[in-house]
Order: sequence, then C-alpha cells, then structure tokens
Amino acid sequence: MTIARDNGAAPDGTILRIIPLGGVGEIGKNMTVIEYGNDIVVIDAGLMFPEEGMFGIDLVVPDVTYLRERKEMVRAFLITHAHEDHVGGLPYVLPTFPGVPVYASTLARGLLGNKIKEHKLRNNPLLALEAGGSVELGPFTATAFRIGHSIPDAMGICLRTPLGNIVHTGDFKFDHTPVDGKLSDFHMLAGFGAEGVLCLMSDSTRAENPGYTPSERTVGEAFREMMEGLDGRVIVATFASNIARIQQVFDAAETFGRSVAVIGRSMEQNTRIASELGYLRYPATQLVPKDRIRDVPDDKLVIATTGAQGEPMAGLARMANRDHRYVEIQAGDTVIVSASPIPGNEEMVGRTIDNLFKAGANVYYHAIRRAHVSGHGSQEELKLMLNLTKPRHFIPIHGEFRMLVQHGRLAAEVGVAPENIFIIENGQPIEFLPDGSARRGARVESGYVFVDGLSVGEVGDVVLRDRRALASDGMFLVVVTVDKQTGNLVGPPEIVTRGFVAEVDAALLAGAIDRISRSIENPGEHTSEIGLLKAQIKDGLSQYLYERTKRRPMVLPVVMEV
Amino acid sequence: MTIARDNGAAPDGTILRIIPLGGVGEIGKNMTVIEYGNDIVVIDAGLMFPEEGMFGIDLVVPDVTYLRERKEMVRAFLITHAHEDHVGGLPYVLPTFPGVPVYASTLARGLLGNKIKEHKLRNNPLLALEAGGSVELGPFTATAFRIGHSIPDAMGICLRTPLGNIVHTGDFKFDHTPVDGKLSDFHMLAGFGAEGVLCLMSDSTRAENPGYTPSERTVGEAFREMMEGLDGRVIVATFASNIARIQQVFDAAETFGRSVAVIGRSMEQNTRIASELGYLRYPATQLVPKDRIRDVPDDKLVIATTGAQGEPMAGLARMANRDHRYVEIQAGDTVIVSASPIPGNEEMVGRTIDNLFKAGANVYYHAIRRAHVSGHGSQEELKLMLNLTKPRHFIPIHGEFRMLVQHGRLAAEVGVAPENIFIIENGQPIEFLPDGSARRGARVESGYVFVDGLSVGEVGDVVLRDRRALASDGMFLVVVTVDKQTGNLVGPPEIVTRGFVAEVDAALLAGAIDRISRSIENPGEHTSEIGLLKAQIKDGLSQYLYERTKRRPMVLPVVMEV
Repeated sequence: MTIARDNGAAPDGTILRIIPLGGVGEIGKNMTVIEYGNDIVVIDAGLMFPEEGMFGIDLVVPDVTYLRERKEMVRAFLITHAHEDHVGGLPYVLPTFPGVPVYASTLARGLLGNKIKEHKLRNNPLLALEAGGSVELGPFTATAFRIGHSIPDAMGICLRTPLGNIVHTGDFKFDHTPVDGKLSDFHMLAGFGAEGVLCLMSDSTRAENPGYTPSERTVGEAFREMMEGLDGRVIVATFASNIARIQQVFDAAETFGRSVAVIGRSMEQNTRIASELGYLRYPATQLVPKDRIRDVPDDKLVIATTGAQGEPMAGLARMANRDHRYVEIQAGDTVIVSASPIPGNEEMVGRTIDNLFKAGANVYYHAIRRAHVSGHGSQEELKLMLNLTKPRHFIPIHGEFRMLVQHGRLAAEVGVAPENIFIIENGQPIEFLPDGSARRGARVESGYVFVDGLSVGEVGDVVLRDRRALASDGMFLVVVTVDKQTGNLVGPPEIVTRGFVAEVDAALLAGAIDRISRSIENPGEHTSEIGLLKAQIKDGLSQYLYERTKRRPMVLPVVMEV
Repeated sequence: MTIARDNGAAPDGTILRIIPLGGVGEIGKNMTVIEYGNDIVVIDAGLMFPEEGMFGIDLVVPDVTYLRERKEMVRAFLITHAHEDHVGGLPYVLPTFPGVPVYASTLARGLLGNKIKEHKLRNNPLLALEAGGSVELGPFTATAFRIGHSIPDAMGICLRTPLGNIVHTGDFKFDHTPVDGKLSDFHMLAGFGAEGVLCLMSDSTRAENPGYTPSERTVGEAFREMMEGLDGRVIVATFASNIARIQQVFDAAETFGRSVAVIGRSMEQNTRIASELGYLRYPATQLVPKDRIRDVPDDKLVIATTGAQGEPMAGLARMANRDHRYVEIQAGDTVIVSASPIPGNEEMVGRTIDNLFKAGANVYYHAIRRAHVSGHGSQEELKLMLNLTKPRHFIPIHGEFRMLVQHGRLAAEVGVAPENIFIIENGQPIEFLPDGSARRGARVESGYVFVDGLSVGEVGDVVLRDRRALASDGMFLVVVTVDKQTGNLVGPPEIVTRGFVAEVDAALLAGAIDRISRSIENPGEHTSEIGLLKAQIKDGLSQYLYERTKRRPMVLPVVMEV
C-alpha cells in the first residue's frame, strides 16, 4: 500500500485504479470504486434482485470485502440516482463505514430519507451534491452533471483526479424533450471533453439497440390516445420511481377531466415525497384518496398503480386476481401496462395480462401497443456520449458481458483506440499510470452476498445448493434407533418424505426399509461410528430410490442411539 | 350420452362438440377433441415443458380423464406435425387407448418411429395420412392439407362432419418461398371456404404481431452474409427439428466450400431420418463425422448444433463452458444463434452468449443480427387464413389467452360475427347444433398431469407445494425420543437442517432446544397422542425460528417412543 507523504498527498508514481464491484451478471452496475493512493471514493451502492435458482433469497448485494479491508481510505459514497440497483445496498454496506458521508441530489436524498430512517443509519451524514455542483474529497474533486433517466434528478459524475478526469455517466439517456424540461448537460460534457477525459465509464444497458431511445414525452402522447373517448375507468401500471411517468399520468388524466388515485405502497410514498419536493405537480383536487375511489364516476377516474412487471403481490396482479382491497377489475376498465417485461418476468407479466382480459378489461400492453420507453440510451446516444467526452480510455459498464462487447465496438467505431477499450468483469481493476497509460491489474475479491430474511451473507452456496436439491426431488428422511450396546435396530425405522411423491406406496416403503435394514445388518469395518452408519444408509437408500423412481431425493439419515 | 341408431349413425339432433384439452397456459395447443354422437377424433397429443415453480418436473402432459371415460368412442389420433408440443404426449396417452390408430405424414411417422420404439407402443398402428389425402373415421372424413411451418410435412386438418366442416390449421405460416418449395395449399383452403366452413380453429401464436412473418429463406441469406469472408470455424445453433433451417446451414456452407458436422443427439437423429426420407439433401462428402472435426481446416468447417435456447446440457452451452467432448470454443470462431429466446429462457440464452464472447468467439444473436424467423404466421397471414376459409364460427387456438383475444379481434375485423367468435380455455366445449348455431357447453375435466422421473401423475400439487416451500427456506428437522411411559425426553433432541442457514449458531440452537423442551413439558390436553405432540413442537419451533430469523423453514418433527 502506498505511504502517504507528510502533506497527505500521494507520492509521484501513484497509480489510479478503477474497480467495478459486486453484481450478478451486470458489470459495474451496483458499485464502482475509484482509488488513488490512500483515498477511495465509491460511486453507488446498489442491489440486485435474485436470479433464477437463487431460491428463497430476498436480495443480492455487493461483497465489499475489498472496501472493508481499506475502511479508513473511503472518503465518500456518491449516488448517481435513487433506483434500487444504485442505492438499495446502502443499508447493508454503510454500517461497515461509520462516518463516511453519502452525497446525493435533492430527490435522491428525499427518497433515501425513509430508507435511512427504516434502517437507522444515523452514522453516515447524507449530504447535498446537486447537478452542476462539486465536492472535494481528498485528492479528488467530484463534479455532478445532470443526465436524463427514468427518475428525475439523475446525475453522472466527473471525478477530477491527479492523473486526469474520470467521467462516470450513471444510467442515462439523452432526451431532448424531457417531461420536467431539464436537459442532460451537454455543455458540461462538452467541457469535460475539451478539458480532456482520461477514462469514460458509460451505461451499456441498450448498447445492442440501434438508433435513439424515444423521448419520455412520447409516452404521454400514447396515454392521451389510449384514454380518448373512454367511458370506463383507466388503470395505469408503471414503475413506482418513474416520477416523470406518473406526472404524465396526471397530465393525461387532466386532459380528460379525470381525477387520479395512486395505489401501491412504494408509489404512494414516492408520489408524496416528489410532490413535497416539487418534482411532481398537479392540481390539489385531482388526487383522490384510495378509499374514496368508489365516489368517483368511472369516466372521471384514473388509477395509477404498481405491478407493471407482473409482481404477484403488487397492485396490478392483485386487482386482476380480485384480491385487492380497493380496486376490482370490471368490464369496461381499460388497463395500460406502461412497462416492458424485464427478461425473466415475461411469464408473470403474461399471466397478469391474461387475468385482466379474463376479468373483462381491455388491456394495452407492450406486445400490441407500446406505452413505455426505456430510460437508457441507444447506440446513437452512446456514440454521442463518446464524441462529447472524447475519452482516451473507455470502460463500458452497466450491462451483461455481451452488451459491453457491443458498446466497446461502438467506441472503436467513433475512434477510441482499441487497445484502450477495456471489457472487464466485476473485481477486475483497471490501473492508470502517471504517463496516462492503462493496464489490467490483478483481480480483487468481488462478488455478491445474499440477503435472506434478517441475515446478510449467512446464506451461501451450500445452502443454495441444498435448496436446489430439495426443490428438484424433495427429501427422504429416515430415522433409525439402534441399541447402543448391540448396534441392532430398535423398532422399525421412521420414514418421512416431503416433495418426493404424493404417496410412498407400500412396495417402495417395504423395499426402502429392507435396504436400510441390510445397511445396518451388514456393517462395514467401522460401523461403530454413527457417521459411517449414516453414510451407508444414505448410499444404499439413494441408489434404491433412484433405481425404483429415477429420482434423487435428498436422503437424510438420522441415527438415534438408546 | 347419445344412443346410436341401428345403422350406427347418430340420431338427428346430435350435437357436435369441440373441446380443447390440456396445456398449461396455451389453449388447444396440445390436444383438441372433436366429438359427434358416439365418435371422437383427437387432433394432436403434445406435451409442454414445465413452467417456473414446477420444481423437479420433467414434462407436463394433458389430463385425458375426459377421453378415458369415453375410451371406446375414440376413432383416431390425427397428428398435424411432429413437434413435441403436438406429439410428445403420445407415449403417456396411447397406452390408455390400445388399438386406436395414429395418423401422420411421412416425416412425422419417421420421427415418431423412434419414440414409438423407445416407449414400446406396439398396440397403436401408425398409419399414413399425407397432405391432400383423406381418411374416413366413422361419421367423419379427415382431409389433410399442406401448411408451412418450421418442420417439413406440416399439415392442417379439415374434418368433414355431419354438421359441417371443421378446419384446424395446426401450427402454420404462409411462406411464399419455402425452402423445400412446397407451398401451403392455398387452393384446398379456398376450396373449403367455397364449400362452407362451420368452424375454423387457427394458430394464434403470433396474433400480436402485425404484418407478415418473413420467409424461412431469408435466414439462408443471413447465413451467407455472416459466413462471407470468414477464416475461422462457424458454429450454428438452432432447433433440432427445423429441417429447413438445417438444410440452409448445409446450403450456405456449400457456398463457401465448407463441410458440416452435426452435433447433438436429437439433431443427429433428426438429420439422419430426414436424409433417409429425402427431406434433407446434401452431397454425401459434405457431412463430417463429429469425431473427425479436428481433421477439417477451420475455414472449411461449419458445425450445426443444438442449444440455441441456452439449455445448459445441450451442445452450445457445453461448448461455451469448455465442457464438450468434440468442440471447444476458440478465438476466431463465429457463432450464429439461429433462434429467438422463448420467454422464460432469456437468462439462460444471455448467459451462454456471454460465455461464448468470453471464450473469444464472435457471436451473432437475436438482439444484434437476426438469423431466425418464426414458424408461425403474423396478423396478415391470420387474416388471409380467415378470408380463405370464410368460417361461420371461429375458435382461436394455440396461444395464451391474450393472444386469443387479439386473434378474435382480427376475425371480427375481417367480418366474422362477434357472437360467433369463442375465446375459450382448455376444457371448455363449444357445441354446434344441427341448425348450425353454436354455444358454450358445460366445462369438462381438463388440465395437466406431471411427468417426473418414471411416474406420470404421481406428483401433484401437494408435492409441488412442498418443493416450493423447501426451495424457499429449506427445512429444520427435529427428532425427539420420549419415554413411552412417562412422556419425558430421553436425551437431547437431534436437529438437522438443510437449505436453512449455513451454520446454526449456538444461541439459535439453544433457543430451539429450549422451545422444544417447553413444548413437551407443557403438554396440552391430549399430548398422549404423538400427532398432537408433533403439532405442538412444530408450531412452537416455527414461531421461534421466524421470530429469530424471519424465515419459515419447513419444520419436521419426528417423535420416537422408547
């Protein structure tokens, strides 16, 4: 580790390191570490939702072992925007870094406030860093710039370092007609480019998509077209944090003289906070409390709700299943699903849409009539970002490996030297030398930890492997009682199965008991030891069950000595 | 049930019934029953692959209780084409109907041959029904007509019944330039329309897609563009049954003087059968045995393989993971994924593509460069089918409920009377009366059964519910031994957990044992009974574990009396 000089500055020759940490498939999505000498700043601290096969896991957060071992070096967490995949890890990460401040924009601080209260994170000051503003952090100066995204007040970070400027875009799109009128700061980006950018880290989510992502404003136009001339209620399902989308629901509703009810815990909370902070504007009389929905005529009502991803416990699915306290779908309802299914959610979304149709609603959804645009820029926007900032080096981030590959190709197309484009995985540092060159460093500990129930990290791969085995073929438990002296069976074995077959038939049971008895009666050399006896029972029984059923339940032998 | 008259004909006033059976989400996909008086014909007998949450299930086949109860009425199974979702259920269904013939086209019979051999289905004759041909089946005459699809020799069925013609399209698209040159039989369809069609049942898979589905031939052009000028090997992954696609792999390879190796059990088998039957043509010298791949220069080789859906055990994923016996991905390889991910498979497909890139290959895949077209017709084709056949009634089939709704709207657009369009679910009969009118009948028993290991139907909802519970939070087993006389604990309880937490800490263990002891020491009124004692242990322990961990493992108490 570099030794700081007396004046606190790092010695000449110090290397600048960028390390994406955490995440499951996406790279650099949840957390990026930038390190120079004895100083580290961290950009974002997000979470991921579990992937297929991560049974029973609630959340996945980055493994911060690398940071924990350099605890005293961490100067700040800089938040680009308040989506869960960028801030959701804070409650699990911050307790390790007491006193380290979190910098965020006004709306992000507003939305984070609850999280911080809920998790009692009193030891980390939550400080203001607004778009256009700067903060000094040891050898770094972090300057935030406004960027378009599917939540207001989203920012990128230009980190001025002793070796040059690092531009981190955060999640972004270039929307020329944003709903709140606040443009991405093209001028600041051009300024960084003029000044010189050592390295650009840019959002690759839609690097596979040619062209431009349409403006969020086009969604408002679609809302109006769909609502035109309707007699029944309108229900719009979308993301709870997309304040611009919710604003457009209010605006379109107003066009047709409709009131708006907001339903869904997170959407109600976000709407309240965004209104208080001035990010959401509507006539006070337009908002209907959810318990007053029945007082509003059908043709004067719009309901905004959550569950656009088909989540079974969210508003839309419950309404479709007639399981919602305030709203039951009725014939004449028009439902607008203002989202595209995230890969992995298609089945759930499809099921919800089917149920809405069955309940008598007309449904506008992604496959037949789009009422959604992405919050991420497409290829032309990514090229514009590259051409504005003119980076010497480029690290595509925020995407699966194949998307980073595509983004890397775009960078090469616009003229970044191919050897200066780094397609990397989490835990792979890129090191910048004082001469401005860059190279791959030795990989650091990275990965993720599971949050399950109350614990963080307690559930590991072994537990998951067991859950997968149990899920696949269930379990077959056998308890035998043996005489401590003779080693003989005392009474018949007790057998319990779950998730194996509906009913263990008599022949299978008899065969199993026979196999168990033989395991005990023909002991190997060391069966005085219970462990070996168990192993023998387990092997014999597993083999028998597979032969008879072609299934491999988890066999659990318990030996009680009396 | 209708009583047959002396001459065997059904009496006047007999009702004609159409009943879609089986399936999970899709309607009428796997099996359609058409019934008149004492006679039934069944169109297709397919299977579905398990959905999310159907843990450990291998296959899902239609529940044929309805047919089993009318066993002697079943005249024939008519097969539209040899895809698994149309024929894969035969091995599980046919044993219930000994002697009932199965009618299929030449290629379908070829592909079915193995299945019938493997499952020893000797009691059901496999008979020829070729496109353009007819067969009499009691009161019915079934006429097969050629239709385009992603497997050669696909057919639809026109079933002439005493009350009128039923046209069942099977899976179809209208390809004006099919690879094998065999057009869909527009003229027969027009003939049915001229004659009069009582009811059309038509494929709704792509009812949400506007326009036309491109010709299969466009994929061959894409293959040639991608292979042009390459020095390295080319690996094409696609569906094992898409003989036209495999033909185009051979054709494109030939353009560049490349040999072809076919890898993957099902693709090798299908390629062999299709070649023998004349459905696949290539110069004998072009085919390379898989164990001779290494003898062919990289720029003279194309490898056709399975696994285009990212299936972890299929060719492509194994090659990407360096886990394949014959092929390991190397720098310079070009991989063409000639498929679109089926909803639910996106994560697996994405993972495989990422691994291919990491292994150094260049990959063409759906998101960046399409080398795939659907085998199902889009909206303009569906309207053409409706306008050719001019049906009086319409039942959209083969699709999720929302797709049937869209298809129903298309039918209304082209002039089918809205009251004659039936959007129905599996098990819902549509009944046709002698006056040509139609109505919904009383629902019949329908649904699906699970195939798991060697058993059919033995795994039911309870088993699946247990597997889901085990998958979510694992299990917590406690074995207590009590004195038969006193009811007192003999020794400490034995505790085994799996899939719960990595290590049960001492405090949690002590607390659990304490709770168990108290359950036993403070027995309720009837604790002489073991069942009640178990219930008490279970309740107390579940509550304790939830309080301490916020998890709900499956608690399994076992009480041994000594």
